[in-house]
Amino acid sequence: MISKKLSTWLPILTWGQQYNRNTLVSDLLAATIVTIMLIPQGLAYALLAGLPPEAGLYASVAPLLLYALFGTSRVLAVGPVAVVSLMTAAAISEQGALSSASPWAIAITLAFLSGALLLLMGLLKLGFLANFLSHPVISGFISASGLLIAASQLKTIMGVRADGQHFFDILSALALQMSQTHLLTLSIGVSTIIFLFWMRKGLKPLLLRAGLGLRLADSLAKAGPVAAIAVTLTLTWWLEWQTQGVKIVGAVPQGLPPLTLSLWDPTLLKQLALPALLISIVGFAESVSVGQTLAAKRRQRIEPNQELIALGASNISASLSGGFPVTGGFARSVVNFDAGAQTPAAGIYTAVGIALASLFLTPALYFLPQATLAATIIVAVLSLVDLTIFKRTWKYSKADFAAALSTFLVTLALGVELGLVTGVTVSLSLFLYRTSRPHIAEVGLVPGTEHFRNVLRHSVLVDPRLVSLRVDESLYFANSKALEDQINQAMATMPTLQHVVLLCSAINDIDASALESLELIESRLLSAGITLHLSEVKGPVMDRLKHTHFLHHLSGQVFLTHYQAIQALSPNLTSQTQSVT
Amino acid sequence: MISKKLSTWLPILTWGQQYNRNTLVSDLLAATIVTIMLIPQGLAYALLAGLPPEAGLYASVAPLLLYALFGTSRVLAVGPVAVVSLMTAAAISEQGALSSASPWAIAITLAFLSGALLLLMGLLKLGFLANFLSHPVISGFISASGLLIAASQLKTIMGVRADGQHFFDILSALALQMSQTHLLTLSIGVSTIIFLFWMRKGLKPLLLRAGLGLRLADSLAKAGPVAAIAVTLTLTWWLEWQTQGVKIVGAVPQGLPPLTLSLWDPTLLKQLALPALLISIVGFAESVSVGQTLAAKRRQRIEPNQELIALGASNISASLSGGFPVTGGFARSVVNFDAGAQTPAAGIYTAVGIALASLFLTPALYFLPQATLAATIIVAVLSLVDLTIFKRTWKYSKADFAAALSTFLVTLALGVELGLVTGVTVSLSLFLYRTSRPHIAEVGLVPGTEHFRNVLRHSVLVDPRLVSLRVDESLYFANSKALEDQINQAMATMPTLQHVVLLCSAINDIDASALESLELIESRLLSAGITLHLSEVKGPVMDRLKHTHFLHHLSGQVFLTHYQAIQALSPNLTSQTQSVT
Repeated sequence: MISKKLSTWLPILTWGQQYNRNTLVSDLLAATIVTIMLIPQGLAYALLAGLPPEAGLYASVAPLLLYALFGTSRVLAVGPVAVVSLMTAAAISEQGALSSASPWAIAITLAFLSGALLLLMGLLKLGFLANFLSHPVISGFISASGLLIAASQLKTIMGVRADGQHFFDILSALALQMSQTHLLTLSIGVSTIIFLFWMRKGLKPLLLRAGLGLRLADSLAKAGPVAAIAVTLTLTWWLEWQTQGVKIVGAVPQGLPPLTLSLWDPTLLKQLALPALLISIVGFAESVSVGQTLAAKRRQRIEPNQELIALGASNISASLSGGFPVTGGFARSVVNFDAGAQTPAAGIYTAVGIALASLFLTPALYFLPQATLAATIIVAVLSLVDLTIFKRTWKYSKADFAAALSTFLVTLALGVELGLVTGVTVSLSLFLYRTSRPHIAEVGLVPGTEHFRNVLRHSVLVDPRLVSLRVDESLYFANSKALEDQINQAMATMPTLQHVVLLCSAINDIDASALESLELIESRLLSAGITLHLSEVKGPVMDRLKHTHFLHHLSGQVFLTHYQAIQALSPNLTSQTQSVT
Repeated sequence: MISKKLSTWLPILTWGQQYNRNTLVSDLLAATIVTIMLIPQGLAYALLAGLPPEAGLYASVAPLLLYALFGTSRVLAVGPVAVVSLMTAAAISEQGALSSASPWAIAITLAFLSGALLLLMGLLKLGFLANFLSHPVISGFISASGLLIAASQLKTIMGVRADGQHFFDILSALALQMSQTHLLTLSIGVSTIIFLFWMRKGLKPLLLRAGLGLRLADSLAKAGPVAAIAVTLTLTWWLEWQTQGVKIVGAVPQGLPPLTLSLWDPTLLKQLALPALLISIVGFAESVSVGQTLAAKRRQRIEPNQELIALGASNISASLSGGFPVTGGFARSVVNFDAGAQTPAAGIYTAVGIALASLFLTPALYFLPQATLAATIIVAVLSLVDLTIFKRTWKYSKADFAAALSTFLVTLALGVELGLVTGVTVSLSLFLYRTSRPHIAEVGLVPGTEHFRNVLRHSVLVDPRLVSLRVDESLYFANSKALEDQINQAMATMPTLQHVVLLCSAINDIDASALESLELIESRLLSAGITLHLSEVKGPVMDRLKHTHFLHHLSGQVFLTHYQAIQALSPNLTSQTQSVT
């Protein structure tokens, strides 16, 4: 019997016990499909990150094994993904200018830092931090990243050299190089793009009409990149396109992932801290969202804080084996799920598949044109670009629109890190701004009832010697001044005022600053000869207030209901018939 | 007839019209008392800021005139104050190391920047920004500032040289210099401190017992610093203490404030931006809080955004006339109020008084020992130190305690700017953390009623095919994942689940991220064959949802009341008698 505690930390102990022949067959089938998909993606994302192609294979072995040990999702496919590779590229190009370390050494250090941060967040149960990435911010960020990645691949498609880190820099650099376009490379790239789009959109209906099953049609349609690689590689080898200036992948070292160690340069570690944190949070948010969606389909659950530990271990293993930052990717996880993966063992088989590929397959990739990989990246990332978010948020909420648009524009114009930081800052600021202006309504008695309504919207009874204020929000430091203001205004504009009654039914919490404000309000009212009363204070709030100076020295009373307050303080109001608004 | 718009911008046009002989007499009397109080304070705070003493007089002329034009408080006394002077000193000592500009030039630039920021915040109506300084943060900050200021004055009292910016640095530097203490200086300083404390605590009861009126006794008790200055100055002149090593104020130039211009060094401006912003916000928060408290006592009102403009103009005028950052101070404003000031004209008369002092009085200050000024500062700032905040917040709310303590410790150990930034960050983070974990209760039917209560706390009826969740918070990006988690858990743990009903009575808002979460929840439930329903959705929330994809494609229904939902989905529950919790 395995202790429950241990199997929380090592979910493999739970599912491993029920492993049988059926799950083995399902997992092996899924792993085969994912491996075929992962080989070109690994190579392509390594190039996107600015690393040698084999780094993509190395990042697809150890991390998968570690995730299989620690992960709680049954079907998450961990490895290099587009957005994280782009963020890695950005961090490398920033550091490249400042440090003498090689890009690969920086990537390994980044994977280590990011893994350590994820592990730490997991141990401290800080998974909730990813919740502060709002949906509009993520959408704006992912769309902008998709465009940035696509733009960065255009130079490979055109066969030119063009530097530039940000979207508009890249486009203007490309415009200057337009005349240098290498036409054969461009033809390979463009025809691959067209072919891949057709495989995505055109092939599946064709296969379905030809009588194939939906699942098979789907899987075949997703084999596009493999077909494109096979065809362009064969053509290049046969027609010797590399002698005509087509850039090829070239010699990829054969062998298992090497043992590599993170750099321990304090300056470098410090400068990589922010990129590593952002990569961790974005990677975690993407991974957890895919994992949760797929788990829910089978009524399973994933444990976000354990996922942090699993992803942390995966990234540390990536840094120890020549890889770069990885996470659970959307596309491959869905394929893994659809192909019938039952347990994380599918990840282990995929890792074995990639290890075999890096042992034996790499010589076969020698003649693969880089433009083919660039084309597969472009087609993959353009599906991430979804500009409808702007229209939807504009209609639904201007604050969400502002967060989405600022993230999108800053990411394009100034890069992934600033974009993300801007988005989080804007969305938190707008949230704080909203909560700092609570809705405070002056209410009056609805004639003939015991109900109170806003004096601005309803014909209600009020008493010029008494004002009733309903606060529609918990009181905390940022909004308690608004209550002070409203009461100051009532004091200044109602010369006959004798009583202020706060209707507290919607106040779930009062923090120390708000308590201070209430004391201040009370003493200001008192010095002007006005009494402060409360009504309908919630139980937990009352429990807290009971021990305070405020309640002991309150000039007025605390009423159970607001109607009781009005009965006591303005007995004539209930008998009044005429509206005084 | 003056246009209403114009008099909003220039409140002097309103109160100036009603100015008469009575208000003149009251204002003149108050101005005389405040002037007497302001002369030593101006000199002392200038020394505290690290500037020549005359800067304190210069900062007490033009700013008062400008505030009288634009300010909305009738009694606020603007000028140098302790905490802002300390923050100025901190900014100067930081810049001093980096820049070749003189301390005074830096102070002038800081006043300009701070004035410009205040003006900008006023024009953009950003007065609410000061609300984000929570009460525990302000308390922790002011107490730590008081201790810092007192510590910084000890070297003057001891007559030694000791550098150090932060509390513990200063104390250890003083400990090292202990043996160098100049005993005569120390005697002057310590006896002044004892005398001033006695004037505060001991004199007033004595005067009252001697038959003096309360107001007169109060005013006399506050004349302590003036008496101390007169006595120590006379003794120094008579006994020629300066020849025995007692440091004196020395030659203070005679004359009106000079015309001075801010530096336009871009590096300096950039580096002073954060200190200037913090000075602006702290100064504004202090000023507005005093202004509001005093205005409320006479049932008057101040207009925070117009106060920003007034303080902005005051600070810009300080930078044009050889001053340094100013704001409305607590102590002098209270004296001004108690002395019967009726209008801001009292500030004009005070400015005239200080101008006369700097024209004619400065030669008389030649023999004033610096230790006397240091003693007046120490006695003034120790009243700011209030360590009971820690005990009170510890009892009331641990989050508020954490904010107060971290502000206090970081301010002492690492300085005013980092302390303030830490406090704001901690208090906002804790607020966001709280709101990111909404209270979500599973509710069941109270037998024999139409009410629903938490299943964990009450004996209620539930149906294993249905779960009712009540969300006690508006849904936004940081907390919507918590709802997803809870529903995922219900899906994973209740194999017979068919219906999820969200009781939405406490949801005031649903942002785009929360809407996305609801859509995700809906599709996850649907793929597991479970239907999602809503009940008791508020009007404004319903209005917003009406136009969305979510409500159009909702698998379940929207019920007016939760009881209707349960009647429709679990008709047997109402007839059940046995509790199933």
